[in-house]
Amino acid sequence: MSSIAFAALTSLQPANIALISAQIGGEPDTWTVDEIGDGNVNLIFRLAGPRGQLLLKRAVPYLRCVGESWPLSLRRNFFESKALQAHAAVAPEYLPRVLAFDEASAAMVMEFLGEHIILRKGVMRGVRYPKFAEHISDYMAKTLFFTSDLYLSAGAKKAQMQLFCENVDLCKITEDLIFTDPYRVADKNRWTSPGLDVIAHDFATDPELKIAITELKAKFLTAAQALIHGDLHTGSIMVNQAETKVIDPEFAFYGPMGFDVGLLLANLWLAYYSQAGLGSNPVEYESWLLEQGEEIWSEFARKFSALWEEHLQGDYLPARLLTADTRAQVIARVRADYLARLFDDALGFAGAEMIRRILGLAHVADMDEISDAEARALCETRALCAARELLVNRRKYGSMPQLLGMLREQRGRTP
Amino acid sequence: MSSIAFAALTSLQPANIALISAQIGGEPDTWTVDEIGDGNVNLIFRLAGPRGQLLLKRAVPYLRCVGESWPLSLRRNFFESKALQAHAAVAPEYLPRVLAFDEASAAMVMEFLGEHIILRKGVMRGVRYPKFAEHISDYMAKTLFFTSDLYLSAGAKKAQMQLFCENVDLCKITEDLIFTDPYRVADKNRWTSPGLDVIAHDFATDPELKIAITELKAKFLTAAQALIHGDLHTGSIMVNQAETKVIDPEFAFYGPMGFDVGLLLANLWLAYYSQAGLGSNPVEYESWLLEQGEEIWSEFARKFSALWEEHLQGDYLPARLLTADTRAQVIARVRADYLARLFDDALGFAGAEMIRRILGLAHVADMDEISDAEARALCETRALCAARELLVNRRKYGSMPQLLGMLREQRGRTP
Repeated sequence: MSSIAFAALTSLQPANIALISAQIGGEPDTWTVDEIGDGNVNLIFRLAGPRGQLLLKRAVPYLRCVGESWPLSLRRNFFESKALQAHAAVAPEYLPRVLAFDEASAAMVMEFLGEHIILRKGVMRGVRYPKFAEHISDYMAKTLFFTSDLYLSAGAKKAQMQLFCENVDLCKITEDLIFTDPYRVADKNRWTSPGLDVIAHDFATDPELKIAITELKAKFLTAAQALIHGDLHTGSIMVNQAETKVIDPEFAFYGPMGFDVGLLLANLWLAYYSQAGLGSNPVEYESWLLEQGEEIWSEFARKFSALWEEHLQGDYLPARLLTADTRAQVIARVRADYLARLFDDALGFAGAEMIRRILGLAHVADMDEISDAEARALCETRALCAARELLVNRRKYGSMPQLLGMLREQRGRTP
Repeated sequence: MSSIAFAALTSLQPANIALISAQIGGEPDTWTVDEIGDGNVNLIFRLAGPRGQLLLKRAVPYLRCVGESWPLSLRRNFFESKALQAHAAVAPEYLPRVLAFDEASAAMVMEFLGEHIILRKGVMRGVRYPKFAEHISDYMAKTLFFTSDLYLSAGAKKAQMQLFCENVDLCKITEDLIFTDPYRVADKNRWTSPGLDVIAHDFATDPELKIAITELKAKFLTAAQALIHGDLHTGSIMVNQAETKVIDPEFAFYGPMGFDVGLLLANLWLAYYSQAGLGSNPVEYESWLLEQGEEIWSEFARKFSALWEEHLQGDYLPARLLTADTRAQVIARVRADYLARLFDDALGFAGAEMIRRILGLAHVADMDEISDAEARALCETRALCAARELLVNRRKYGSMPQLLGMLREQRGRTP
């Protein structure tokens, strides 16, 4: 057992050690403890005993992928546990079970998802997940709807929101890394050089992009719509052919719904643009990726609408405002307007996520693992051009099919 | 001394009694204590001693204008004190001084504004306040700008916001009385009958209004832009020829800036439409009222822009995003977009306020004191037609002069 693993284990409260023991059998000194994390933020261990396995997630007081120079509150673990709790209340089927939150050691003991892999890895191998779009659209519809004031009273929503007002450190990472740094010359930025040198410079000095990203950041700072996951990329989702599990909601706070939807779409579209460079998957896999985005949006919109129809009880549109005569017309218009704004937000946030994953600090393996730098630069340029269109001109695309036309057109760009 | 006055005074902590004594002289049993409140919410007393006067404001555990059937948390007094503190930090010249907040008795001891009168009363008498537009635009620019993330870091803003997440009771009053009840058949509604019977029924069943008010309510529920006053009508402002003081911010919370601006404009416009019915002021006073709204908006926009230019330090548009080349262009566009949205919000909220003051529970004296019911109904109908236009078609009016044209046109309506 490594010293960090030993430290993580011995820092747990005795009651939680007993809990683990009851679950996986044996005593701590007989357990196998492997550090398995490849995330950017925390330490992750697999605990194995004679009767089973569990996952131990422990926060360190800095951003793991950068180091101690980027201090980060240990309380992110607390917010993650609170978000898991709130989301598990409405969509437990898509979350790992939490056995214990050990506040004193900033650690969580959770179900070990041994039968699942990180979606990004599966996608890079060209695996199709037939249930994924159905599951993730359901997860988003439920977590976003039930934590918003479409469902909750304003008071109940604000009580939740109040808690997450303190999750400032992680929001700050997003504010800087997604909404600021890629649009300026910043030490933390990196990109495929020299292939992207010109476009990186262009993006850092483009007034239209600065204006567009500011409008999106404004939504991130002020639109307290729902308890969002806050980091819903394909590395935060574990899948297999039958199940989908969403992990790592430490960035959760009351923010714009479109942020979750947009990050997810962006990561599918990054995967789409990476295919030509990776070269390892059949060409039809590109279409499958685009279809996933289309299905996720349409299924999300359908399920979200159905939940709203079924639970017309929040303060947003109280049932008592409606009369028999006006009910259908008012609900239809309010919902259509709501979803149109959500779609618009999602496209904008998707563009921002694509750009920061190519020009900012934290990249995606889909692109990074294209070993030929020229091929990578071409894939990334196509993605960046599509992303700029999403930021600046997204209102030209009123529907997902229209938008996919633009994405395909950018895919066809030649150097 | 009345028994409620005695109860209010004896409930104060000894330290606060000593504070009052140091200020106004004498001992409690020698003070004159008059209940002077005519507000809807609290008990207000004037304390007079040999050397001066103070104001004592005490919350009761119900909405005063309705009675014990509408319970209301005593903590509103706490939120009022916190809002006064936050706003006094940036615009002290427009606020009464607070000597003490006595949390245990839900009471506040404040400066007695003996030289000022409630703006609504002054306006009903046709008095002009030459400094008012200048002052109130400055008050709004400062309180809204400095509490927003245009000026604050996201973390500092959320720390403030967190506190006001608990001010749920008073927000609920607004949610119900402004954003719901006037658009449905509700027991609490009242209107000039029979003159407004038809229009009240129309408004309660109009799908376009229900759709429009829902969009505005959404902003009230989710747009956490700044620490707004939350009830900035002409009864919350005390004036004389030289000074302007804003009182009663117990409805304060992090909400949309346009709500404060809109409520203020609405109350000036209600006064405008009431003039013909009151019949006591010279006809030019109508123009003066419209000019005030115009000047308030243009001065607010100018001052708000200047503050933003001067303090480019919040997380909304961080200075590091700007380059020498793009700075002027980006600031100008971001600011113009921001103010255009704020103007749009303000007009919408103004329409909502005008409607609820005519068809909802809490009316304004400007209209209520028109003794001839037919004349009153005509004034109110004009105001309602203008307000409906603000709710449903406000995007047709891109500037204040355009909008004033519409307001004047509605003023000309004959029965």
